[in-house]
Parts: sequence; C-alpha cells; structure tokens
Amino acid sequence: MPDPVSDPVCTAKHLHHVCIAVKDIGETVRFYQDVLGIGPVNIQEVADQKVKAALVKIGGTELEFIQPTDPNTGVAKFLEQRGEGMHHICFEVDGLADTLKRLEAKGVRLIDKTPRKGLAGMIAFLHPAATRGVLIELVEGQRSSP
Amino acid sequence: MPDPVSDPVCTAKHLHHVCIAVKDIGETVRFYQDVLGIGPVNIQEVADQKVKAALVKIGGTELEFIQPTDPNTGVAKFLEQRGEGMHHICFEVDGLADTLKRLEAKGVRLIDKTPRKGLAGMIAFLHPAATRGVLIELVEGQRSSP
Repeated sequence: MPDPVSDPVCTAKHLHHVCIAVKDIGETVRFYQDVLGIGPVNIQEVADQKVKAALVKIGGTELEFIQPTDPNTGVAKFLEQRGEGMHHICFEVDGLADTLKRLEAKGVRLIDKTPRKGLAGMIAFLHPAATRGVLIELVEGQRSSP
Repeated sequence: MPDPVSDPVCTAKHLHHVCIAVKDIGETVRFYQDVLGIGPVNIQEVADQKVKAALVKIGGTELEFIQPTDPNTGVAKFLEQRGEGMHHICFEVDGLADTLKRLEAKGVRLIDKTPRKGLAGMIAFLHPAATRGVLIELVEGQRSSP
C-alpha cells in the first residue's frame, strides 16, 4: 500500500472531465442521450482549436466530446491513428501557472508551459510521454487561491 | 443544441471511475502520488480477473489502475496493441440487471448480459463496438432502488 509523498508537485482535487474524440458529435450526443440519459447538450464550434465540442454534466463531473473540423489537427490525427475513443482526462488544480512551473522544474514534459484558454477555463496539457500514455489536461480550480 | 430524449434506456447518474491500463502499477501509483498528489493507495490482486488493481479517490470520483498479471487477458492484449492509456470509463446506474435487459432489447451489444462482481461492486461492460470506441462499464448505484 504505497503512501502518498509529503510534498507532491500539485494536488488533483477534482476530476473535471473525460474527453472522448468522435467523428460525428451530433450522432454521438444523440447516442449518449438515448442510451445513457445525458441532459441537454450545447455543441460549440471552437474555431481556434478547429473542433466542435460539448461539455455534458454527469453527476459532479463532465464528459467532453470533441470532433475535429480540420484534418490537420491533433484530434484528427488521433482519430486516424487510434479511432474514436477516450482522448484525455482533465484534473482541477489550484494555482495552475505555479503548478506548471513546478512540473517543469521536476522534469515533467509539458505541451503548454503557461495556462491558455480552453473550453473548461484556463487550462494546460501535460505531454503523454511524461504520464504513461495518458494525455492529462489541468484546469485552474474554480475556487483557486489568489 | 440536441435535447435529451424523453425515455432513455438508463441514466448515468455519476461517473464512478476512469480506468487506466498500465504495465507497472506500483511505479504508476508513485508517479500520480508524486506529481498529482493522490492519497494512499491499496493495490489489490484480483485473482479471477488476473490483474493487480487499485481504486483511488479524486474529489467525488475515482481513478482505477489495472496491471495484467497474465499475458492472455484482455487487458494484456490492450497494452500490447495500444500501449498504456485509458482503458474504460464507468458510470453508476440504478437497477443494473434491468438496465442490461433494456439495453439488450434496444440492440446495444453487451459483454456482460447480467451483473457480475467487480472491484467497484456489481458491474457489467457494454461492448465498445456499440459505444463508438469507448469501453463502458456500468456499476450498480449504491443508493439503488430495490
């Protein structure tokens, strides 16, 4: 039973969302509504990321669906190589900018060295090579300290 | 903005856990403790499923880590074909046995037609071919109606 370390780089205090990459977001949302009873869904076009996306509440966390709108994006390449499926997982942390500095100092490879605006708020991605194959997104906690 | 259907097959009321398949569960847990501040972890050997597994609380939901202990299991084949990464997602539903009957009647392909005991409780898997590439587990809700 491994015990936690006394001074972790950050604390993932909440699983904010799990993101699923899909080819047809409208059809997928309809499936999840029909079979798993998810609520109303607002599909947004995120022009700068070249995706259509939607966040859907399930209990205290969310599912995100993304569909690429451009074949040259990372998400389109993910679909081409791996097919539809889970794309990334997002944890809420306090003090995202500082967290990224501490992660970098610790030698954890980052995709984003500073927070940027994403669908879920101010976010940053860790590199999957640093996290045993899982693409991890961090989002600034909503009740973050100043 | 697609609206929910009036009579879904079931309602995923909670994201119970996200499962990550790994090659070395001890090393992975240490990484998540060191970098993401997860708490103490109880790694269990689940002999009948031929995996080592651990469920770890993050806020109101959980991460599950699984490491195969036999090369002929589904999880070992997943690792061989896709490498380490997200393996499945688990939603809590009420009335799992009835839900599985309704899913089958609806033509949703199932791996488990009746609930069986898993690490998270009484569980069943839907077939990923029915769910757009995502392996979905359902677990009986803890406050399920009789």
